Amino acid sequence: MSFNIEREKGKKRVVIVGGGFGGLKLANKLSKSNFQVILIDKNNYHQFPPLIYQVASAGIEPSSISFPFRKIFGKNSHVHYRMAEARLIFPEKNILQTSIGKIEYDYLVLAAGTTSNFFGNQNIEREAIPMKTLQEAMGLRNALLGNFERSVTCATEQERRELLNIVIVGGGATGVEIAGALAEMKRYVLPKDYPDMNENLLQIYLIEASSRLLSGMAPVSSQKSAEFLRRMGINVWLDKKVMDYRNHKVILEDGTQIPTRTFIWVSGVRANTIGNMPAASLGRGGRIKVDAYNKAEGFDNIFCIGDQCIMSGDKEYPGGHPQLAQVAIQQGSLLAANLIRLQKGKAMKPFRYRNLGSMATVGRNKAVAEFSSLKTQGWIAWLLWLVVHLRSILGVRNKINVLLNWMWSYLTYDHSLRLILYPRKAQEVIEREKREAETHWGEDEMQQNNQ
Amino acid sequence: MSFNIEREKGKKRVVIVGGGFGGLKLANKLSKSNFQVILIDKNNYHQFPPLIYQVASAGIEPSSISFPFRKIFGKNSHVHYRMAEARLIFPEKNILQTSIGKIEYDYLVLAAGTTSNFFGNQNIEREAIPMKTLQEAMGLRNALLGNFERSVTCATEQERRELLNIVIVGGGATGVEIAGALAEMKRYVLPKDYPDMNENLLQIYLIEASSRLLSGMAPVSSQKSAEFLRRMGINVWLDKKVMDYRNHKVILEDGTQIPTRTFIWVSGVRANTIGNMPAASLGRGGRIKVDAYNKAEGFDNIFCIGDQCIMSGDKEYPGGHPQLAQVAIQQGSLLAANLIRLQKGKAMKPFRYRNLGSMATVGRNKAVAEFSSLKTQGWIAWLLWLVVHLRSILGVRNKINVLLNWMWSYLTYDHSLRLILYPRKAQEVIEREKREAETHWGEDEMQQNNQ
Repeated sequence: MSFNIEREKGKKRVVIVGGGFGGLKLANKLSKSNFQVILIDKNNYHQFPPLIYQVASAGIEPSSISFPFRKIFGKNSHVHYRMAEARLIFPEKNILQTSIGKIEYDYLVLAAGTTSNFFGNQNIEREAIPMKTLQEAMGLRNALLGNFERSVTCATEQERRELLNIVIVGGGATGVEIAGALAEMKRYVLPKDYPDMNENLLQIYLIEASSRLLSGMAPVSSQKSAEFLRRMGINVWLDKKVMDYRNHKVILEDGTQIPTRTFIWVSGVRANTIGNMPAASLGRGGRIKVDAYNKAEGFDNIFCIGDQCIMSGDKEYPGGHPQLAQVAIQQGSLLAANLIRLQKGKAMKPFRYRNLGSMATVGRNKAVAEFSSLKTQGWIAWLLWLVVHLRSILGVRNKINVLLNWMWSYLTYDHSLRLILYPRKAQEVIEREKREAETHWGEDEMQQNNQ
Repeated sequence: MSFNIEREKGKKRVVIVGGGFGGLKLANKLSKSNFQVILIDKNNYHQFPPLIYQVASAGIEPSSISFPFRKIFGKNSHVHYRMAEARLIFPEKNILQTSIGKIEYDYLVLAAGTTSNFFGNQNIEREAIPMKTLQEAMGLRNALLGNFERSVTCATEQERRELLNIVIVGGGATGVEIAGALAEMKRYVLPKDYPDMNENLLQIYLIEASSRLLSGMAPVSSQKSAEFLRRMGINVWLDKKVMDYRNHKVILEDGTQIPTRTFIWVSGVRANTIGNMPAASLGRGGRIKVDAYNKAEGFDNIFCIGDQCIMSGDKEYPGGHPQLAQVAIQQGSLLAANLIRLQKGKAMKPFRYRNLGSMATVGRNKAVAEFSSLKTQGWIAWLLWLVVHLRSILGVRNKINVLLNWMWSYLTYDHSLRLILYPRKAQEVIEREKREAETHWGEDEMQQNNQ
């Protein structure tokens, strides 16, 4: 396999790895420039992570918060999209090896984001359900609904408790939001759907290792969100560290055990890796160290933006920026401008993060929001949250879809998309053929290394 | 595992296997009767097969044409839903063995429908993509989009031809409809999405073994639908029999070979089976022989309705009824009335099929429809098709969803849901646990047989 993209005369080539918030912003901003832009992503769509938890809780469809890359770039011949996974870099040759073959670059921009961090615990990695991607959210939805069904027919009380308990590890925004959504499902949906179920048996635990939820926000937001959640019936446990998961039991450091088969892991992330990146270039959480221009340490034409990088040059953030959408978007935007400046022989501008605020929603009419000195909790924050997120979703149709879903759920107290559903058959064939194809790049790479 | 459903005093118990058109109608009609009704289905939702092809062609979401059983029956305590697969019957004990344990019945109604028939060819069974269920349609969508992506990056012209050719085997309604939908995708979507692709290389074949498409309808409908499809660029091949599929090639009886990796099989069905059903009770296509009251041959309290049965008592249909939604719905409705009559000591009424007409859509403003003597083709038929199908979809929200999707696609010439997406992780865990649980019923059953 190969990219099948010819060099265009007089145009330098920018290869972007990852079409998340940062990569997509960069590609869009460069799409009318004099660069040939190649965007690769392992999925054929851009996704909107802030609402992934609503996919998991059967509130919205995956298609409502994702957008096919080919639809974004179809007619714009300056940006070429290819579905591929980045494997490793040959910096001395300016070549990126991917799952569909090699590609030469003039500038390489890594924007591959992060993946769930299981901190080396293989039991947890194997059994916990992460929630970083649409696929994982669909998996969680299937698991949740499947466990509810099985709780009705299972043989023992022990098993029933395992099937109904839900343990969420990690009190960041995702943990808080999925906990709130599940509390509402317990309250409004389950009593209607499962007349045979004693929904009091369904207990939701939100476990956080530090002393407060939403540690990236102000203490008042942390406190208020915990208060909201507790009032909604969530067991919010702070200062508790999860050590292991064995025999359908979450095991805490203090010895406490919670039986559960719905073990949701949103406890931390580490940067996605790329082969041949020297260890010296990596910082905390596997993030690639970059200077104030997002240039990767030790390289001249390799950049990294968003969650995957850690920047040392921003005075206000000496320990690096928080891993947020806004940082990625602003870095993607600036890097586009900087590459264009480079091309014109001008000096690049250093990055400075403008904090536009942050927010997290907990449930109906309940959210916390902060905009510099303004901090608000409750229904105003909730309304702000709705508006900000609706505005940020790509595509008119998706905006309409999500809005209609929200209105429907708000009015009916119902989450309608309660299907246990996964595609069959063709997937197996594709996976098999993909494995076969992979051998090619493996051989390729070995030859390369043997040369 | 077990059903966990107590007998209700003074109520006879009806166990229904399958919540398709027939089973759902029966359950609904019995829900206010003096029966205890137990409905089992392997999925947790009722699906609407006539629109499954639009899920495959990325036109609508699976959730728009499916409806969770628990949402239908939640508050109605007379109907108990359980997610389970029927395994075998012990008629002498009035017991049904399922994947979640045994259940005693007074009346057992089999309404489990059909599955794809590969006529014993294992190559075809392993490699072809069927389109009977939502899961399979999602699989086909993933395969189609994945193959388009790979066609851009593949190494050889041979491979490209395999990835772009689409072969549909079976010229019934499903085959005609998916062929039409794919022709429109080729015409309106691909040129925008894939500027690098020469979409003339994408050839769609519709292969039918008999001498006409839509053999269940009048010759004028067959002829007109073939004409529509050919005008849309489909290669409609009649009187051609598919013998095998090897090395990514469909092999016809006359020796012709068509290279393809998108090999869609909608060529025929056979009834779903249930263990311990004597061979003498089975007719053509594995269908269970029933009398004019849908009572299974050789049994007193086992009934079978819909596609899974073949009835000998209807004079106008001596060879059995066509396997259509309308037959199943009418049989489900009559059986409900008959069971209530039985309970009151009255005689049952024999079934007579009222043919309400049939229709198939081919594309924008193109369909064929028949209502007894009225036969129409073109945009009137198309409009009728839209109205009839929209009316039949369960649930207001689903109707709105489908209508909005149709309007959007009609106005924009776009199929928006072009995501390659399958759930991850949790599925593996569930499948593993399901396998573990299965051993229990296996042992159970053996003990039963050894007694």
